[in-house]
Order: sequence, then C-alpha cells, then structure tokens
Amino acid sequence: MKTEIIAVGTELLTPDFQDTNSLFLTAGLNAAGIEVAFKSVVGDDSRDLACALRTAIGRADLILCMGGLGPTEDDRTRETLARVLGKKLLFRKEIAARIRERFRRRGLRAPAANLKQSYVIDGAETLDNPNGTAPGLWLAAGRRRIALLPGPPREIRPMFESHVLPRLERRGGATVLRRVIRLTGLGESAMEMKLKPVYAIVPPGVGVTTLASPGDLSIRLTAPVKGPVEAAEARLDRIVRAIDRALGPYIYSRDGSSLEAVVGGLLRSRGLTIACAESCTGGLIASRITDVPGSSAYFLESAVTYGDRSKTRRLGVPKALIERHGAVSAAVARAMAAGIRRTSGAGLGLAVTGVAGPGGGTASKPVGLVYIALARARGTAVTRSLFFGSREDVKFQSSQKALDLVRKSLTPARGKPL
Amino acid sequence: MKTEIIAVGTELLTPDFQDTNSLFLTAGLNAAGIEVAFKSVVGDDSRDLACALRTAIGRADLILCMGGLGPTEDDRTRETLARVLGKKLLFRKEIAARIRERFRRRGLRAPAANLKQSYVIDGAETLDNPNGTAPGLWLAAGRRRIALLPGPPREIRPMFESHVLPRLERRGGATVLRRVIRLTGLGESAMEMKLKPVYAIVPPGVGVTTLASPGDLSIRLTAPVKGPVEAAEARLDRIVRAIDRALGPYIYSRDGSSLEAVVGGLLRSRGLTIACAESCTGGLIASRITDVPGSSAYFLESAVTYGDRSKTRRLGVPKALIERHGAVSAAVARAMAAGIRRTSGAGLGLAVTGVAGPGGGTASKPVGLVYIALARARGTAVTRSLFFGSREDVKFQSSQKALDLVRKSLTPARGKPL
Repeated sequence: MKTEIIAVGTELLTPDFQDTNSLFLTAGLNAAGIEVAFKSVVGDDSRDLACALRTAIGRADLILCMGGLGPTEDDRTRETLARVLGKKLLFRKEIAARIRERFRRRGLRAPAANLKQSYVIDGAETLDNPNGTAPGLWLAAGRRRIALLPGPPREIRPMFESHVLPRLERRGGATVLRRVIRLTGLGESAMEMKLKPVYAIVPPGVGVTTLASPGDLSIRLTAPVKGPVEAAEARLDRIVRAIDRALGPYIYSRDGSSLEAVVGGLLRSRGLTIACAESCTGGLIASRITDVPGSSAYFLESAVTYGDRSKTRRLGVPKALIERHGAVSAAVARAMAAGIRRTSGAGLGLAVTGVAGPGGGTASKPVGLVYIALARARGTAVTRSLFFGSREDVKFQSSQKALDLVRKSLTPARGKPL
Repeated sequence: MKTEIIAVGTELLTPDFQDTNSLFLTAGLNAAGIEVAFKSVVGDDSRDLACALRTAIGRADLILCMGGLGPTEDDRTRETLARVLGKKLLFRKEIAARIRERFRRRGLRAPAANLKQSYVIDGAETLDNPNGTAPGLWLAAGRRRIALLPGPPREIRPMFESHVLPRLERRGGATVLRRVIRLTGLGESAMEMKLKPVYAIVPPGVGVTTLASPGDLSIRLTAPVKGPVEAAEARLDRIVRAIDRALGPYIYSRDGSSLEAVVGGLLRSRGLTIACAESCTGGLIASRITDVPGSSAYFLESAVTYGDRSKTRRLGVPKALIERHGAVSAAVARAMAAGIRRTSGAGLGLAVTGVAGPGGGTASKPVGLVYIALARARGTAVTRSLFFGSREDVKFQSSQKALDLVRKSLTPARGKPL
C-alpha cells in the first residue's frame, strides 16, 4: 500500500516554515506499520492543488491531505477534491448548527465565511474537530482512502489520533517492526564504512536507513512481520547485535531517545545531580537538559558565563588563569567545571568554553575550537575538539559532545564496575 | 514559470528528519524573484522516483532535484532521470580523474563505487562540487531546466549559490520585491481580524501571506516589478503602512530579522548590557541571545537557576519569599530580575519563572503559568502570562514574551523620549 501526505498552503512554500504536521503524521503512520512513499507540498492555487490531488490519486492508495479547510478565500481543498473526483458538495445542517454553537459559546456570532465549512463531499464521513470549526473528511475513491484534515497542529493531532488511526488499523496491512539507533562522535562516512559488514548480513525485506546531521547520526531498522512476531524480532535483534559490534562506543540510544533523555535517565538512576557552566554554548546545554520532563530531579542550575568577569565572579576561575591561557583553554574549562561543581553542590560539573564563530577565531584558536570539562568527585576530565560549520552547528555539536561525555562517564565500561 | 523542488531519499520520509535543504533553496529562489509552486519528497525506490520526476516534468518549468547522487546502491537519481528523459549516460574520464585525485589527497584509494559518479546524462552540463565527489548536473528538456544536486547541506549550498543561481538570473523572469514583517504577542485569528482593512486595499498582483506558529507570526508581502522599481516599492510601502496602523505594537521586525537580533541591535545602539535569570526557560533565552554573532558586546551572563536553592544562592532571592509566594510568582520573578541585575552589573536584568509542564501544575498555578520580570535602573516591571501547548511551546513562548518585553522597554513610545 502506497501512502502519500499532501500539505496544502502557500506559506509552506516559503523558506522558514517548519512543517511539523508531516513529521507528526509520519510518526503515527510508522507506528501503525505504514510507510510513507510520497510527501507533497502545494500552494493555495486551485489548479496546482488539483494537479497535486490527481497525482496522488494516480499513485497512492492512502492519501492524507492537510490544510485548506478554513473559512477564508484561500481555503479550497474541499471543493477542489470534489471537482477532481467529480462529486457533489452537500450542505449539512447539523455541521452548520455545531459551528454556530461553537461561536455562541464564546459570545460571538458565526461569520458567514465559516458556513462554507458545513459542506461535505458526497459520500464522505465527517471527522470530528474538537479544537476547531472545520470537520475533517474521510472518503473512498475506488480502493483508495482519502482523508482531508485541518492544517493547525492543535486541530489535526487529536483528529488524526482519534479518527484516522483507528480507521487505518481496521484496514489491516502488514505490521512493520521498527528500531531506531542513535549515535554521536563520528562522521557519516566513518559510520558507513563500519556498517559494511552489517549490510552484508541484512536479510531481504529488512530495511536499514541511515540519517546524518552535524553531530548526530541515526540508523533505522524496519522488518515486516510475516508469520510469528518473534521471528521478525529475532531478525532485527541479530542486526542490532551486529551494529553494536561495529559501532558500540558511539551508540547513545537504541530506542530513539534523545541524548539528553538518556543522560537524564542515567543521572536519575544513580541519584546524581549535575550543574553546568556554559560559555560558547550559551545556555543550549541547560535548555536541552530541561526539555526532558522531570529534569528538576537531577538538574540544579547552569551558569551561562559569557563574559570573562562572570567566569571569575560566578565560578571562581582565577583572573590570572584567564589572562595566562585565554578563556578558550583546557585550564579554564577545567576551572569552570570544578567551580560550578563546588559552588552548586552538584555531583557533576560540566563546562564548555570555545569559539562558536563566525568571528572571534585566531590562528592558534580557530572558529570551532571547543574545550569541554567534566568534574566529578574522582577528578576532572577535559577534551579538546574542533567543530566545523555555522555558529549554530558549533553550538549544537558542542552540546552533543558535552552530553555524550556525561553519558560515557556514567556508563560502565564492559566488564568494569562503575 | 512554475518551479518544483524534489528531495530524494527514504530518510526524508521518516518522522524526524529536518529537510533544511528545501528551506535553503526556497530562500535563494525567492531572493532571485522565483516562487516555488511544488515541493515533493520521494524515497530511493526507483519507480517512485521516476514517478515523481515525470510528475514534475509535466507541471513545472524549473525542477531542482536533490539527493541520490552518492556512490551507494540507493543512489539512483542520475540513471532514473536519464531513463525518464530517454537519454544516455556517458562516462566522463575527467570526472573520474578528479574523484581519484580527491581520494588520493586524503591518502586513500577511490572506492570503485564512487566511479559511478563519473557518469553524466547526455547533453547535461556538470556543476562543480568543491565539498564532495559527485558533480551536480544542469540540463534542458525542451523549455524546462532541470538541476540534479547533491543531498548533503555542505555540498548543495555552495553549488546552488555558485552554479545554479547565476544560471537562473541569466534566464531572467520577473523580479519580485519582498518584505517580511514579524510579530508576537497576539494570536493568529486576532491578527487576521486586524488585517481585514489591509486586505481590502491590497492591489492585484501583490501577495500577502501570513504564517503562524505558537508565539510567532509573520506577514510576507510580494510585489512583482513591472516597469519602474520605485512604483512597486511604493505599492509595498503603502501596504506596510496599513499593516503598521493595524498591528503596530505587535511588530518586532520589518526585514525578517529574528527577535533576538532586534533586541541585540537595540542594546548595542544604546550601549546597554543584559543578564538573565532563567528558571522554566532553562537556558533557552541565553541560547537565543547568543545565537546572534557579536552578542558578547551586550550579553554578560545567564543564571539558569532551576532549583530553589540556586535562586537564593546565586541571585539572593530570600528563602522566605520563595516559601511564602512559591517559586512561580510575581514576587520571586521580581527578586530574580533585581538579583541578576545587581550581581552581574548589567544594565538590564531579565527573569523568567513558570510551569513548563507537562507535570508540575496545580489548580492555582497551572501548567503554562509564567511570570516575567525586567529590572532596569528606573524600576522593575513584571508580567503574568498563561501559555498553552507542549513543554517546548511554553518554553519558546516564554522566551518570545521575555525578549519582546526587552524590545518594548528599549523602543521609545510614539512621540515620547526614551
């Protein structure tokens, strides 16, 4: 079964709109065992929209189309699909009544424009929209199923989970088992080379896809379930073990969890607390750590000591040390880590100092040079790295390496006690 | 002229791959006056890829296709397009020689697989790839132009700027003037209502598109240049003035700049410094401020005082105050802002305390309740907000409101001195 997602809206064809709906829908479809074959984005122009709908009907069995169900002039999805399918639009009194009631509850009269949302394509079922006025539509065109869903995330998400997913599960279709392995600390080509012996033993039907972005890699495995689930699980387990042999030290999660979630889990299970001293990462490490719900159980504070004076005043880094080695140095990183650990009372002190760029680099301390230090009761470790890319890339990769240093520090080496 | 962007790669059909290439290409195309009509994402399967290419050839005049030019089995874009167009693939010795040289420079032998990147579609020009082995391709199919570009961001970006954009500018096509107005502090429906009188005076040809995400709105204006540029500029200026009348207080930038860049500019031009005390935002405000190059000129530090003890120890917030009002209160926000201002020596002290969620809320202090305080020499202002959405939404909207508070504090009210 081929599935296509269509996102409708001229704003989606601009440079900085993050289409989070497609990602959300894809995650839900994948979890239900359905892979996405095509994703299309098209504007509000009705000819372009008709073209995109016809294309999807010609190549996919399940089409999820989102956007263009609103009350404005630009919202044309209902009528365009009706025209493409050669079906009528029917006015439904009870939908109009619900829309009027929704406005009345807020002390308003329903604008006339919203009443166009009461029209339903002949033959379609409506999908209730608890967070908006436009109901979604679910209809069949031959063996195909087409869903029209609203654009706003807070409207589409409950509708997709309550009314679309259950219809898909009823249709059946092959279940697909999935594993996501996440890695950091090596580049894409190095990972590909180490994966060669793994690719050699992948059986037909098992999918292995790699994704790479600066500082973060992932390997996705999929195995269709034909016959007993245990056989498919065993097939995947064999590949995972091979990947572990090839890439073990670089793997930070085997279930898709983020690095900050993994670190949080390790801190929590060992009853340890952490505090950070951030210079070039500017608060990004603390922001990532605190993205994890419940992080207040192990995260005490972060001192974003951007200027040199604050390094001395907050962390006790001697002014003479900064003058002698420079703010971006192993000595200062070490002093920052020990300082935040001491002044916060945390079990672990994590410090980062570096040159994020694009300016600020010199011949001896180029853009991308970053020192990371981790202070624990038993001592302080310091690493030196050189990251490439934009300011945001250097910040992010620094946060990855810093968090991974904590992860490795809390993970017992094979055969050795913690 | 209709333009389509095709992104090739099965990884792009998974839930968490951020396709930043499309956004980058769209920005470049828009700047050259070219709008994007279609964006498609397709996997490595050669039938699906052929289908996507044929669809694009049937509906677009300019097709930018990225991905699938690598050396692996899954890289099939070259041969699939050749088959769709009915053209031959020709081996080019000089490309093979360059690929071998690239590996030799790194002390390696070129893998046999990379030699498939020496094949060029008959009639195509090659586009040099300084950061990778695969050259891009530029070819004509009738009146259409098709570009095949590599997937990795660090390879496609220089190639697009050096070799694709100049070819597009040579083709000519209508220049389009563009303005981006960014706003915060009101919801999408409220903005739409205030824009009604503006929509009424928009002349034909001028495009007005709105984008909304939690905490951030933007209005994009486009005007095609027919005749003298000044006439198109004047048309846009008239609309911008109307938008200013309708939405003035909510507008933070009129040139697409981020809120943190605008705030940075205001601090710099007034010679003021700022320090932050962040609880629920967890370092996000400092991270955003330091995303702006040169921010060390005005940003001193941030104390991410996640736990109550650190609020007392770092900022001098009296323990009794926290016990009496709770960490999430106007009184504590005020004390945090005054505290960071005093201890850092900054001109402005910005503090945020709230309940980010999903847990931690109570009847009197629900998830999304956030207090923001700004301390200046003349006094401290505190605001109370209730944000909706996920943990990340609450964090982001808090950072938006906090930065906007600083912006408004540094922007003279109409007719009044600062």
